[in-house]
Amino acid sequence: MTEPHRYLVGLVGTGVTPSLTPPMHMAEARALGLDYLYRPIDLSVLGLVPDQLPDILTWARRLGFDALNITHPCKRLVIEYLDRIDPVAAQLGAVNTVLFTDDGLVGHNTDTTGFETALRTGLPGAALDDVVLIGAGGAGSAVADALLRAGVRHLTVVDVDVQRAAEAAADLTARHGADVSASDPGALPGLLPHADGVVHCTPTGMHDHPGIPFPPALLRSDLWVADIVYRPLETALLKAARAAGCRTLDGGRMAVFQAADAFELITGIRPDADRMIGHFHRLVAADELVR
Amino acid sequence: MTEPHRYLVGLVGTGVTPSLTPPMHMAEARALGLDYLYRPIDLSVLGLVPDQLPDILTWARRLGFDALNITHPCKRLVIEYLDRIDPVAAQLGAVNTVLFTDDGLVGHNTDTTGFETALRTGLPGAALDDVVLIGAGGAGSAVADALLRAGVRHLTVVDVDVQRAAEAAADLTARHGADVSASDPGALPGLLPHADGVVHCTPTGMHDHPGIPFPPALLRSDLWVADIVYRPLETALLKAARAAGCRTLDGGRMAVFQAADAFELITGIRPDADRMIGHFHRLVAADELVR
Repeated sequence: MTEPHRYLVGLVGTGVTPSLTPPMHMAEARALGLDYLYRPIDLSVLGLVPDQLPDILTWARRLGFDALNITHPCKRLVIEYLDRIDPVAAQLGAVNTVLFTDDGLVGHNTDTTGFETALRTGLPGAALDDVVLIGAGGAGSAVADALLRAGVRHLTVVDVDVQRAAEAAADLTARHGADVSASDPGALPGLLPHADGVVHCTPTGMHDHPGIPFPPALLRSDLWVADIVYRPLETALLKAARAAGCRTLDGGRMAVFQAADAFELITGIRPDADRMIGHFHRLVAADELVR
Repeated sequence: MTEPHRYLVGLVGTGVTPSLTPPMHMAEARALGLDYLYRPIDLSVLGLVPDQLPDILTWARRLGFDALNITHPCKRLVIEYLDRIDPVAAQLGAVNTVLFTDDGLVGHNTDTTGFETALRTGLPGAALDDVVLIGAGGAGSAVADALLRAGVRHLTVVDVDVQRAAEAAADLTARHGADVSASDPGALPGLLPHADGVVHCTPTGMHDHPGIPFPPALLRSDLWVADIVYRPLETALLKAARAAGCRTLDGGRMAVFQAADAFELITGIRPDADRMIGHFHRLVAADELVR
Protein backbone atom coordinates (compact mmCIF):
# COMPACT_ATOMS: atom_id res chain seq x y z
CA MET A 1 0.00 0.00 0.00
CA THR A 2 1.76 3.15 -1.18
CA GLU A 3 0.67 6.08 0.94
CA PRO A 4 1.58 9.62 -0.12
CA HIS A 5 4.45 11.04 1.94
CA ARG A 6 3.41 12.91 5.04
CA TYR A 7 5.72 15.80 5.86
CA LEU A 8 6.91 16.71 9.34
CA VAL A 9 8.80 19.99 9.68
CA GLY A 10 9.92 22.11 12.63
CA LEU A 11 11.05 25.68 13.26
CA VAL A 12 13.93 25.94 15.74
CA GLY A 13 14.75 29.21 17.47
CA THR A 14 13.98 31.38 20.46
CA GLY A 15 10.53 32.92 20.64
CA VAL A 16 9.25 31.20 17.51
CA THR A 17 5.88 30.15 18.95
CA PRO A 18 3.96 33.03 17.28
CA SER A 19 5.82 32.72 13.95
CA LEU A 20 3.61 32.87 10.87
CA THR A 21 5.93 30.58 8.92
CA PRO A 22 4.43 27.27 10.17
CA PRO A 23 0.81 28.21 9.38
CA MET A 24 1.90 29.69 6.05
CA HIS A 25 3.57 26.39 5.04
CA MET A 26 0.58 24.37 6.23
CA ALA A 27 -1.96 26.55 4.43
CA GLU A 28 -0.08 26.14 1.15
CA ALA A 29 0.36 22.39 1.70
CA ARG A 30 -3.37 22.05 2.30
CA ALA A 31 -4.08 23.97 -0.91
CA LEU A 32 -1.78 21.52 -2.72
CA GLY A 33 -3.42 18.48 -1.12
CA LEU A 34 -0.28 17.56 0.84
CA ASP A 35 -0.23 16.14 4.34
CA TYR A 36 2.13 18.53 6.11
CA LEU A 37 2.66 19.16 9.81
CA TYR A 38 4.93 22.07 10.76
CA ARG A 39 5.60 22.64 14.46
CA PRO A 40 7.46 25.44 16.26
CA ILE A 41 10.29 24.12 18.46
CA ASP A 42 10.69 27.16 20.67
CA LEU A 43 13.94 27.07 22.63
CA SER A 44 12.62 29.67 25.09
CA VAL A 45 9.44 27.68 25.80
CA LEU A 46 11.34 24.39 26.09
CA GLY A 47 14.14 25.77 28.27
CA LEU A 48 16.74 24.68 25.73
CA VAL A 49 19.94 26.54 24.87
CA PRO A 50 21.55 26.88 21.44
CA ASP A 51 24.38 24.58 22.57
CA GLN A 52 21.82 21.76 22.47
CA LEU A 53 21.41 22.23 18.73
CA PRO A 54 23.29 18.99 17.88
CA ASP A 55 20.86 17.02 20.07
CA ILE A 56 17.89 18.83 18.53
CA LEU A 57 19.09 17.92 15.04
CA THR A 58 19.82 14.30 15.97
CA TRP A 59 16.49 13.73 17.67
CA ALA A 60 14.42 15.57 15.09
CA ARG A 61 15.92 13.31 12.47
CA ARG A 62 15.38 10.15 14.55
CA LEU A 63 11.79 11.09 15.36
CA GLY A 64 10.90 11.41 11.72
CA PHE A 65 11.22 15.10 10.82
CA ASP A 66 11.85 15.76 7.13
CA ALA A 67 13.41 19.17 7.64
CA LEU A 68 13.88 22.06 10.05
CA ASN A 69 13.82 25.77 9.54
CA ILE A 70 16.43 27.40 11.76
CA THR A 71 16.24 30.92 13.03
CA HIS A 72 17.77 33.24 15.63
CA PRO A 73 20.10 32.50 17.40
CA CYS A 74 21.12 29.31 15.57
CA LYS A 75 21.62 30.24 11.91
CA ARG A 76 25.41 30.35 12.06
CA LEU A 77 25.87 27.83 14.84
CA VAL A 78 24.05 25.11 12.90
CA ILE A 79 26.62 25.04 10.10
CA GLU A 80 29.18 22.94 11.93
CA TYR A 81 26.67 20.11 12.36
CA LEU A 82 25.78 19.78 8.68
CA ASP A 83 27.07 17.25 6.20
CA ARG A 84 26.66 19.49 3.17
CA ILE A 85 25.84 23.15 2.57
CA ASP A 86 24.43 24.90 -0.45
CA PRO A 87 26.99 27.34 -1.97
CA VAL A 88 24.75 30.41 -1.56
CA ALA A 89 24.28 29.62 2.14
CA ALA A 90 27.96 28.79 2.52
CA GLN A 91 28.98 32.13 1.06
CA LEU A 92 26.62 33.93 3.44
CA GLY A 93 27.73 31.79 6.39
CA ALA A 94 24.18 31.29 7.65
CA VAL A 95 21.63 28.50 7.23
CA ASN A 96 17.89 28.73 7.83
CA THR A 97 16.78 25.42 6.29
CA VAL A 98 18.14 21.96 7.09
CA LEU A 99 16.99 18.96 5.08
CA PHE A 100 17.35 15.47 6.51
CA THR A 101 18.34 13.51 3.42
CA ASP A 102 19.72 10.04 2.73
CA ASP A 103 23.06 11.80 2.24
CA GLY A 104 22.90 13.49 5.64
CA LEU A 105 22.03 16.98 6.83
CA VAL A 106 22.00 19.56 4.05
CA GLY A 107 21.84 23.31 4.76
CA HIS A 108 20.33 26.10 2.67
CA ASN A 109 19.52 29.76 3.20
CA THR A 110 16.16 30.88 1.88
CA ASP A 111 16.27 34.27 3.63
CA THR A 112 18.73 35.46 1.02
CA THR A 113 17.08 33.69 -1.93
CA GLY A 114 13.70 34.84 -0.62
CA PHE A 115 14.70 38.50 -0.58
CA GLU A 116 16.20 38.15 -4.04
CA THR A 117 12.92 36.81 -5.43
CA ALA A 118 10.90 39.36 -3.45
CA LEU A 119 12.91 42.18 -5.00
CA ARG A 120 12.71 40.76 -8.54
CA THR A 121 8.96 40.11 -8.39
CA GLY A 122 7.92 43.00 -6.14
CA LEU A 123 9.99 45.77 -7.72
CA PRO A 124 10.58 44.55 -11.28
CA GLY A 125 13.02 46.67 -13.23
CA ALA A 126 14.13 48.64 -10.18
CA ALA A 127 17.40 50.52 -10.75
CA LEU A 128 20.23 48.81 -8.86
CA ASP A 129 23.23 51.02 -9.50
CA ASP A 130 23.37 52.56 -6.06
CA VAL A 131 21.58 51.04 -3.09
CA VAL A 132 21.69 51.87 0.62
CA LEU A 133 21.16 49.09 3.16
CA ILE A 134 20.27 50.13 6.70
CA GLY A 135 21.11 47.49 9.32
CA ALA A 136 24.10 45.14 9.23
CA GLY A 137 22.71 42.35 11.44
CA GLY A 138 21.73 38.86 10.38
CA ALA A 139 18.80 39.95 8.23
CA GLY A 140 20.86 42.75 6.70
CA SER A 141 23.61 40.28 5.78
CA ALA A 142 21.16 37.97 4.01
CA VAL A 143 19.68 40.97 2.16
CA ALA A 144 23.12 42.35 1.25
CA ASP A 145 24.13 39.07 -0.40
CA ALA A 146 20.83 39.02 -2.28
CA LEU A 147 21.32 42.61 -3.47
CA LEU A 148 24.81 41.86 -4.77
CA ARG A 149 23.62 38.67 -6.53
CA ALA A 150 20.76 40.73 -8.02
CA GLY A 151 23.28 43.11 -9.61
CA VAL A 152 23.65 46.09 -7.27
CA ARG A 153 26.75 47.96 -8.43
CA HIS A 154 27.42 50.09 -5.38
CA LEU A 155 26.10 49.16 -1.97
CA THR A 156 26.41 51.28 1.16
CA VAL A 157 25.92 49.46 4.45
CA VAL A 158 24.67 51.79 7.20
CA ASP A 159 24.55 50.80 10.85
CA VAL A 160 24.47 52.69 14.16
CA ASP A 161 27.43 50.47 15.03
CA VAL A 162 29.86 51.85 12.44
CA GLN A 163 32.39 49.16 13.26
CA ARG A 164 29.82 46.50 12.41
CA ALA A 165 28.96 48.30 9.16
CA ALA A 166 32.65 48.47 8.25
CA GLU A 167 33.16 44.78 8.95
CA ALA A 168 30.11 43.86 6.89
CA ALA A 169 31.30 46.03 4.00
CA ALA A 170 34.80 44.53 4.10
CA ASP A 171 33.33 41.02 4.20
CA LEU A 172 30.97 41.70 1.29
CA THR A 173 33.79 43.25 -0.75
CA ALA A 174 36.02 40.26 -0.11
CA ARG A 175 33.36 37.63 -0.84
CA HIS A 176 31.65 39.24 -3.82
CA GLY A 177 34.48 41.36 -5.24
CA ALA A 178 31.85 44.12 -5.02
CA ASP A 179 31.95 47.86 -4.46
CA VAL A 180 30.62 48.12 -0.91
CA SER A 181 31.18 50.96 1.53
CA ALA A 182 30.13 51.53 5.15
CA SER A 183 28.56 54.47 6.87
CA ASP A 184 26.50 55.59 9.85
CA PRO A 185 22.91 56.87 9.92
CA GLY A 186 24.11 60.43 10.20
CA ALA A 187 25.38 60.15 6.62
CA LEU A 188 21.96 59.24 5.17
CA PRO A 189 21.12 62.87 4.14
CA GLY A 190 24.22 62.70 1.96
CA LEU A 191 23.66 59.14 0.69
CA LEU A 192 19.96 58.93 -0.15
CA PRO A 193 19.70 61.85 -2.62
CA HIS A 194 21.81 59.96 -5.19
CA ALA A 195 20.64 56.43 -4.32
CA ASP A 196 18.31 54.36 -6.52
CA GLY A 197 16.88 52.48 -3.59
CA VAL A 198 17.06 51.85 0.13
CA VAL A 199 16.44 48.66 2.07
CA HIS A 200 15.61 48.87 5.74
CA CYS A 201 16.76 45.89 7.89
CA THR A 202 16.47 46.99 11.53
CA PRO A 203 13.57 46.42 13.97
CA THR A 204 12.46 50.07 13.76
CA GLY A 205 8.80 50.22 12.78
CA MET A 206 7.83 46.90 14.32
CA HIS A 207 4.90 47.00 16.73
CA ASP A 208 7.34 46.78 19.64
CA HIS A 209 9.81 49.26 18.12
CA PRO A 210 7.66 52.02 16.63
CA GLY A 211 9.38 54.75 14.68
CA ILE A 212 10.88 55.56 11.31
CA PRO A 213 14.54 54.85 10.51
CA PHE A 214 15.31 58.18 8.80
CA PRO A 215 13.59 61.52 8.26
CA PRO A 216 10.78 61.25 5.65
CA ALA A 217 12.11 64.45 4.13
CA LEU A 218 14.85 62.30 2.56
CA LEU A 219 12.24 60.38 0.51
CA ARG A 220 11.66 61.31 -3.12
CA SER A 221 9.49 59.71 -5.77
CA ASP A 222 12.35 58.14 -7.78
CA LEU A 223 13.79 56.33 -4.73
CA TRP A 224 12.48 52.81 -4.23
CA VAL A 225 12.03 51.75 -0.61
CA ALA A 226 12.05 48.21 0.77
CA ASP A 227 11.32 47.29 4.37
CA ILE A 228 11.85 43.84 5.85
CA VAL A 229 9.59 44.54 8.85
CA TYR A 230 6.23 42.84 8.32
CA ARG A 231 4.44 43.27 11.63
CA PRO A 232 2.83 45.58 10.66
CA LEU A 233 3.00 45.22 6.90
CA GLU A 234 2.55 48.97 6.49
CA THR A 235 5.35 50.47 8.56
CA ALA A 236 5.73 54.19 9.18
CA LEU A 237 8.56 54.11 6.62
CA LEU A 238 6.47 52.52 3.87
CA LYS A 239 3.53 54.79 4.61
CA ALA A 240 5.73 57.87 4.26
CA ALA A 241 7.39 56.40 1.14
CA ARG A 242 4.03 55.80 -0.54
CA ALA A 243 2.95 59.32 0.39
CA ALA A 244 6.14 60.58 -1.29
CA GLY A 245 5.31 58.59 -4.45
CA CYS A 246 8.04 55.95 -4.04
CA ARG A 247 7.79 52.38 -5.33
CA THR A 248 7.79 50.17 -2.26
CA LEU A 249 8.40 46.56 -1.26
CA ASP A 250 6.95 45.41 2.04
CA GLY A 251 8.49 42.81 4.36
CA GLY A 252 5.75 40.32 3.68
CA ARG A 253 7.14 39.44 0.29
CA MET A 254 10.52 38.37 1.71
CA ALA A 255 8.73 36.43 4.47
CA VAL A 256 6.63 34.66 1.85
CA PHE A 257 9.47 33.86 -0.54
CA GLN A 258 11.78 32.55 2.19
CA ALA A 259 8.91 30.22 3.09
CA ALA A 260 8.16 29.36 -0.54
CA ASP A 261 11.80 28.50 -1.22
CA ALA A 262 12.00 26.35 1.93
CA PHE A 263 8.73 24.64 1.01
CA GLU A 264 10.12 23.78 -2.41
CA LEU A 265 13.36 22.43 -0.95
CA ILE A 266 11.40 20.24 1.47
CA THR A 267 8.73 18.93 -0.89
CA GLY A 268 10.24 19.32 -4.35
CA ILE A 269 7.05 21.17 -5.28
CA ARG A 270 7.13 24.87 -6.20
CA PRO A 271 4.27 26.46 -4.28
CA ASP A 272 1.96 29.10 -5.72
CA ALA A 273 3.62 32.30 -4.52
CA ASP A 274 0.58 34.51 -5.10
CA ARG A 275 -1.56 32.13 -3.09
CA MET A 276 1.06 32.12 -0.32
CA ILE A 277 0.97 35.92 -0.24
CA GLY A 278 -2.78 35.56 0.29
CA HIS A 279 -2.25 33.11 3.18
CA PHE A 280 0.31 35.48 4.65
CA HIS A 281 -1.95 38.53 4.49
CA ARG A 282 -4.78 36.59 6.15
CA LEU A 283 -2.41 35.38 8.89
CA VAL A 284 -1.08 38.87 9.52
CA ALA A 285 -4.61 40.27 9.64
CA ALA A 286 -5.67 37.57 12.13
CA ASP A 287 -2.54 38.27 14.13
CA GLU A 288 -3.32 41.99 14.26
CA LEU A 289 -6.79 41.20 15.59
CA VAL A 290 -5.40 39.50 18.70
CA ARG A 291 -2.74 42.11 19.47
CA MET B 1 -6.56 32.68 14.56
CA THR B 2 -7.62 29.45 16.27
CA GLU B 3 -6.45 26.50 14.24
CA PRO B 4 -7.75 23.02 15.06
CA HIS B 5 -5.19 20.94 16.93
CA ARG B 6 -2.88 18.88 14.75
CA TYR B 7 -1.88 15.60 16.33
CA LEU B 8 1.60 14.12 16.23
CA VAL B 9 1.97 10.56 17.53
CA GLY B 10 4.75 7.96 17.39
CA LEU B 11 5.10 4.21 17.84
CA VAL B 12 8.26 3.23 19.72
CA GLY B 13 9.61 -0.32 19.56
CA THR B 14 11.84 -2.68 17.62
CA GLY B 15 10.71 -3.67 14.15
CA VAL B 16 7.66 -1.39 14.17
CA THR B 17 8.17 -0.01 10.65
CA PRO B 18 5.56 -2.32 9.04
CA SER B 19 3.04 -1.95 11.89
CA LEU B 20 -0.54 -1.39 10.79
CA THR B 21 -1.31 0.72 13.87
CA PRO B 22 -0.06 4.05 12.42
CA PRO B 23 -2.05 3.79 9.16
CA MET B 24 -5.09 2.57 11.11
CA HIS B 25 -5.01 5.65 13.37
CA MET B 26 -4.47 7.96 10.42
CA ALA B 27 -7.28 6.43 8.35
CA GLU B 28 -9.72 6.92 11.22
CA ALA B 29 -8.47 10.47 11.88
CA ARG B 30 -8.97 11.30 8.22
CA ALA B 31 -12.52 9.92 8.37
CA LEU B 32 -13.13 12.17 11.39
CA GLY B 33 -11.62 15.22 9.68
CA LEU B 34 -8.69 15.40 12.10
CA ASP B 35 -5.15 16.38 11.20
CA TYR B 36 -3.16 13.45 12.56
CA LEU B 37 0.37 12.32 11.80
CA TYR B 38 1.49 9.01 13.29
CA ARG B 39 5.07 7.91 12.68
CA PRO B 40 6.88 4.66 13.53
CA ILE B 41 10.00 5.24 15.64
CA ASP B 42 11.72 1.95 14.95
CA LEU B 43 14.56 1.29 17.38
CA SER B 44 16.05 -1.33 15.06
CA VAL B 45 16.07 1.04 12.07
CA LEU B 46 17.45 3.94 14.14
CA GLY B 47 20.12 1.89 15.90
CA LEU B 48 18.70 2.84 19.30
CA VAL B 49 18.55 0.60 22.37
CA PRO B 50 15.76 0.42 24.94
CA ASP B 51 18.06 2.09 27.50
CA GLN B 52 17.63 5.27 25.45
CA LEU B 53 13.92 5.32 26.21
CA PRO B 54 14.21 8.29 28.62
CA ASP B 55 15.85 10.35 25.86
CA ILE B 56 13.22 9.22 23.35
CA LEU B 57 10.44 10.33 25.71
CA THR B 58 12.12 13.66 26.51
CA TRP B 59 12.80 14.56 22.90
CA ALA B 60 9.46 13.37 21.58
CA ARG B 61 7.81 15.67 24.09
CA ARG B 62 10.11 18.59 23.27
CA LEU B 63 9.64 18.16 19.53
CA GLY B 64 5.89 18.40 19.83
CA PHE B 65 4.55 14.83 19.99
CA ASP B 66 1.17 14.52 21.69
CA ALA B 67 1.58 10.86 22.61
CA LEU B 68 3.52 7.68 21.94
CA ASN B 69 2.43 4.11 21.64
CA ILE B 70 5.04 1.85 23.18
CA THR B 71 5.62 -1.73 22.19
CA HIS B 72 8.15 -4.54 22.54
CA PRO B 73 10.62 -4.40 24.25
CA CYS B 74 9.72 -1.23 26.15
CA LYS B 75 6.28 -1.78 27.70
CA ARG B 76 7.55 -2.50 31.21
CA LEU B 77 10.72 -0.43 31.01
CA VAL B 78 8.77 2.75 30.24
CA ILE B 79 6.93 2.75 33.56
CA GLU B 80 9.77 4.20 35.62
CA TYR B 81 9.85 7.32 33.45
CA LEU B 82 6.18 8.20 33.83
CA ASP B 83 4.64 10.77 36.14
CA ARG B 84 1.31 8.98 36.46
CA ILE B 85 -0.08 5.62 35.47
CA ASP B 86 -3.63 4.46 34.92
CA PRO B 87 -4.68 1.84 37.53
CA VAL B 88 -5.45 -0.87 34.94
CA ALA B 89 -1.99 -0.44 33.40
CA ALA B 90 -0.39 -0.23 36.84
CA GLN B 91 -1.97 -3.51 37.89
CA LEU B 92 -0.74 -5.18 34.71
CA GLY B 93 2.70 -3.61 35.03
CA ALA B 94 2.89 -2.72 31.36
CA VAL B 95 2.17 0.48 29.40
CA ASN B 96 1.56 0.75 25.66
CA THR B 97 0.32 4.36 25.50
CA VAL B 98 2.03 7.44 26.91
CA LEU B 99 0.26 10.80 26.81
CA PHE B 100 2.28 14.01 27.10
CA THR B 101 -0.01 16.13 29.24
CA ASP B 102 0.32 19.38 31.14
CA ASP B 103 0.59 17.19 34.24
CA GLY B 104 3.44 15.18 32.82
CA LEU B 105 3.75 11.76 31.21
CA VAL B 106 0.72 9.56 31.79
CA GLY B 107 0.75 5.81 30.98
CA HIS B 108 -2.13 3.56 29.92
CA ASN B 109 -2.46 0.04 28.57
CA THR B 110 -4.89 -0.39 25.71
CA ASP B 111 -3.76 -3.92 24.87
CA THR B 112 -5.63 -5.17 27.89
CA THR B 113 -8.63 -2.84 27.50
CA GLY B 114 -8.60 -3.59 23.75
CA PHE B 115 -8.84 -7.34 24.28
CA GLU B 116 -11.58 -6.84 26.85
CA THR B 117 -13.67 -4.85 24.35
CA ALA B 118 -12.83 -7.26 21.54
CA LEU B 119 -14.12 -10.17 23.62
CA ARG B 120 -17.27 -8.34 24.72
CA THR B 121 -18.19 -7.15 21.22
CA GLY B 122 -16.82 -10.06 19.20
CA LEU B 123 -18.12 -12.92 21.34
CA PRO B 124 -21.09 -11.41 23.18
CA GLY B 125 -22.52 -13.66 25.88
CA ALA B 126 -19.61 -16.10 25.71
CA ALA B 127 -19.44 -18.39 28.76
CA LEU B 128 -16.56 -17.39 31.01
CA ASP B 129 -16.58 -19.95 33.79
CA ASP B 130 -13.54 -21.86 32.64
CA VAL B 131 -11.06 -20.42 30.15
CA VAL B 132 -7.68 -21.66 28.95
CA LEU B 133 -5.02 -19.15 27.96
CA ILE B 134 -2.13 -20.42 25.85
CA GLY B 135 1.00 -18.27 26.10
CA ALA B 136 2.21 -16.42 29.21
CA GLY B 137 4.31 -13.72 27.50
CA GLY B 138 3.53 -10.01 27.32
CA ALA B 139 0.46 -10.38 25.13
CA GLY B 140 -0.79 -13.29 27.25
CA SER B 141 -0.44 -11.19 30.41
CA ALA B 142 -2.50 -8.34 28.94
CA VAL B 143 -5.14 -10.84 27.80
CA ALA B 144 -5.16 -12.62 31.18
CA ASP B 145 -5.89 -9.38 33.02
CA ALA B 146 -8.67 -8.61 30.53
CA LEU B 147 -10.18 -12.08 30.98
CA LEU B 148 -10.23 -11.74 34.76
CA ARG B 149 -11.74 -8.24 34.58
CA ALA B 150 -14.33 -9.62 32.13
CA GLY B 151 -15.43 -12.17 34.73
CA VAL B 152 -13.59 -15.43 34.00
CA ARG B 153 -14.02 -17.61 37.08
CA HIS B 154 -11.30 -20.15 36.50
CA LEU B 155 -8.34 -19.42 34.24
CA THR B 156 -5.64 -21.89 33.28
CA VAL B 157 -2.40 -20.40 31.97
CA VAL B 158 -0.57 -22.78 29.65
CA ASP B 159 2.98 -22.22 28.46
CA VAL B 160 5.77 -24.43 27.11
CA ASP B 161 7.82 -22.83 29.87
CA VAL B 162 5.93 -24.27 32.83
CA GLN B 163 7.89 -22.12 35.24
CA ARG B 164 6.74 -19.00 33.41
CA ALA B 165 3.14 -20.26 33.43
CA ALA B 166 3.37 -20.91 37.18
CA GLU B 167 4.76 -17.43 37.86
CA ALA B 168 2.04 -15.84 35.77
CA ALA B 169 -0.66 -17.84 37.57
CA ALA B 170 0.75 -16.91 40.98
CA ASP B 171 0.94 -13.26 39.98
CA LEU B 172 -2.64 -13.22 38.62
CA THR B 173 -3.92 -14.97 41.73
CA ALA B 174 -2.18 -12.44 43.97
CA ARG B 175 -3.24 -9.37 41.99
CA HIS B 176 -6.82 -10.34 41.18
CA GLY B 177 -7.63 -12.72 44.05
CA ALA B 178 -8.67 -15.04 41.22
CA ASP B 179 -8.67 -18.76 40.70
CA VAL B 180 -5.80 -19.22 38.27
CA SER B 181 -3.79 -22.38 37.69
CA ALA B 182 -0.80 -23.17 35.48
CA SER B 183 -0.11 -26.01 33.12
CA ASP B 184 1.89 -27.11 30.09
CA PRO B 185 0.67 -27.81 26.53
CA GLY B 186 0.73 -31.54 27.18
CA ALA B 187 -2.20 -31.02 29.56
CA LEU B 188 -4.47 -29.46 26.91
CA PRO B 189 -6.23 -32.75 26.06
CA GLY B 190 -7.33 -32.84 29.68
CA LEU B 191 -8.15 -29.12 29.98
CA LEU B 192 -10.02 -28.25 26.80
CA PRO B 193 -12.87 -30.79 27.04
CA HIS B 194 -14.34 -28.99 30.07
CA ALA B 195 -13.34 -25.40 29.06
CA ASP B 196 -15.80 -22.78 27.82
CA GLY B 197 -13.20 -21.03 25.73
CA VAL B 198 -9.55 -20.88 24.76
CA VAL B 199 -7.41 -17.85 23.91
CA HIS B 200 -4.22 -18.35 21.93
CA CYS B 201 -1.41 -15.86 22.64
CA THR B 202 1.75 -17.28 21.06
CA PRO B 203 3.25 -16.53 17.63
CA THR B 204 2.16 -19.93 16.22
CA GLY B 205 0.08 -19.39 13.10
CA MET B 206 1.76 -16.15 12.05
CA HIS B 207 3.13 -16.07 8.51
CA ASP B 208 6.62 -16.56 9.87
CA HIS B 209 5.57 -19.20 12.42
CA PRO B 210 3.08 -21.42 10.56
CA GLY B 211 1.32 -24.13 12.51
CA ILE B 212 -1.49 -24.80 14.91
CA PRO B 213 -1.04 -24.58 18.69
CA PHE B 214 -2.89 -27.76 19.59
CA PRO B 215 -4.47 -30.73 17.80
CA PRO B 216 -7.72 -29.75 16.03
CA ALA B 217 -9.26 -32.92 17.42
CA LEU B 218 -9.56 -31.05 20.74
CA LEU B 219 -11.98 -28.53 19.18
CA ARG B 220 -15.70 -28.96 19.71
CA SER B 221 -18.61 -26.76 18.70
CA ASP B 222 -19.39 -25.45 22.19
CA LEU B 223 -15.81 -24.22 22.78
CA TRP B 224 -15.20 -20.62 21.77
CA VAL B 225 -11.76 -19.91 20.29
CA ALA B 226 -9.90 -16.59 20.26
CA ASP B 227 -6.59 -15.98 18.50
CA ILE B 228 -4.50 -12.85 18.91
CA VAL B 229 -2.47 -13.51 15.75
CA TYR B 230 -3.73 -11.27 12.95
CA ARG B 231 -1.22 -11.77 10.15
CA PRO B 232 -3.01 -13.70 8.69
CA LEU B 233 -6.42 -12.93 10.11
CA GLU B 234 -7.53 -16.48 9.41
CA THR B 235 -4.97 -18.62 11.19
CA ALA B 236 -4.86 -22.40 10.93
CA LEU B 237 -6.40 -22.49 14.43
CA LEU B 238 -9.36 -20.27 13.52
CA LYS B 239 -9.92 -22.13 10.27
CA ALA B 240 -10.07 -25.44 12.11
CA ALA B 241 -12.26 -23.92 14.84
CA ARG B 242 -14.77 -22.63 12.31
CA ALA B 243 -14.77 -26.03 10.59
CA ALA B 244 -15.56 -27.56 13.99
CA GLY B 245 -18.47 -25.12 14.45
CA CYS B 246 -16.84 -23.02 17.19
CA ARG B 247 -17.59 -19.34 17.77
CA THR B 248 -14.35 -17.49 17.02
CA LEU B 249 -12.65 -14.15 17.69
CA ASP B 250 -9.81 -13.16 15.38
CA GLY B 251 -6.76 -11.14 16.35
CA GLY B 252 -7.84 -8.18 14.27
CA ARG B 253 -10.48 -7.17 16.77
CA MET B 254 -7.94 -6.82 19.62
CA ALA B 255 -5.58 -4.94 17.27
CA VAL B 256 -8.39 -2.57 16.34
CA PHE B 257 -9.66 -1.97 19.87
CA GLN B 258 -6.19 -1.35 21.31
CA ALA B 259 -5.84 1.28 18.57
CA ALA B 260 -9.34 2.66 19.14
CA ASP B 261 -8.74 3.00 22.88
CA ALA B 262 -5.38 4.72 22.31
CA PHE B 263 -6.96 7.02 19.72
CA GLU B 264 -9.62 8.03 22.22
CA LEU B 265 -7.04 8.68 24.95
CA ILE B 266 -5.00 10.85 22.58
CA THR B 267 -7.82 12.84 20.98
CA GLY B 268 -10.68 12.61 23.47
CA ILE B 269 -12.83 11.40 20.57
CA ARG B 270 -14.25 7.88 20.50
CA PRO B 271 -13.57 6.54 17.02
CA ASP B 272 -16.04 4.49 15.01
CA ALA B 273 -14.91 0.95 15.82
CA ASP B 274 -16.73 -0.68 12.91
CA ARG B 275 -15.12 1.77 10.52
CA MET B 276 -11.72 1.04 12.09
CA ILE B 277 -12.28 -2.67 11.54
CA GLY B 278 -12.87 -1.79 7.90
CA HIS B 279 -9.60 0.20 7.73
CA PHE B 280 -7.81 -2.69 9.39
CA HIS B 281 -9.14 -5.31 6.99
CA ARG B 282 -8.14 -3.15 4.02
CA LEU B 283 -4.65 -2.65 5.48
CA VAL B 284 -4.20 -6.36 6.15
CA ALA B 285 -5.39 -7.20 2.63
CA ALA B 286 -2.95 -4.66 1.13
CA ASP B 287 -0.22 -6.07 3.34
CA GLU B 288 -0.94 -9.60 2.14
CA LEU B 289 -0.62 -8.42 -1.46
CA VAL B 290 2.99 -7.32 -0.97
CA ARG B 291 4.12 -10.38 0.97
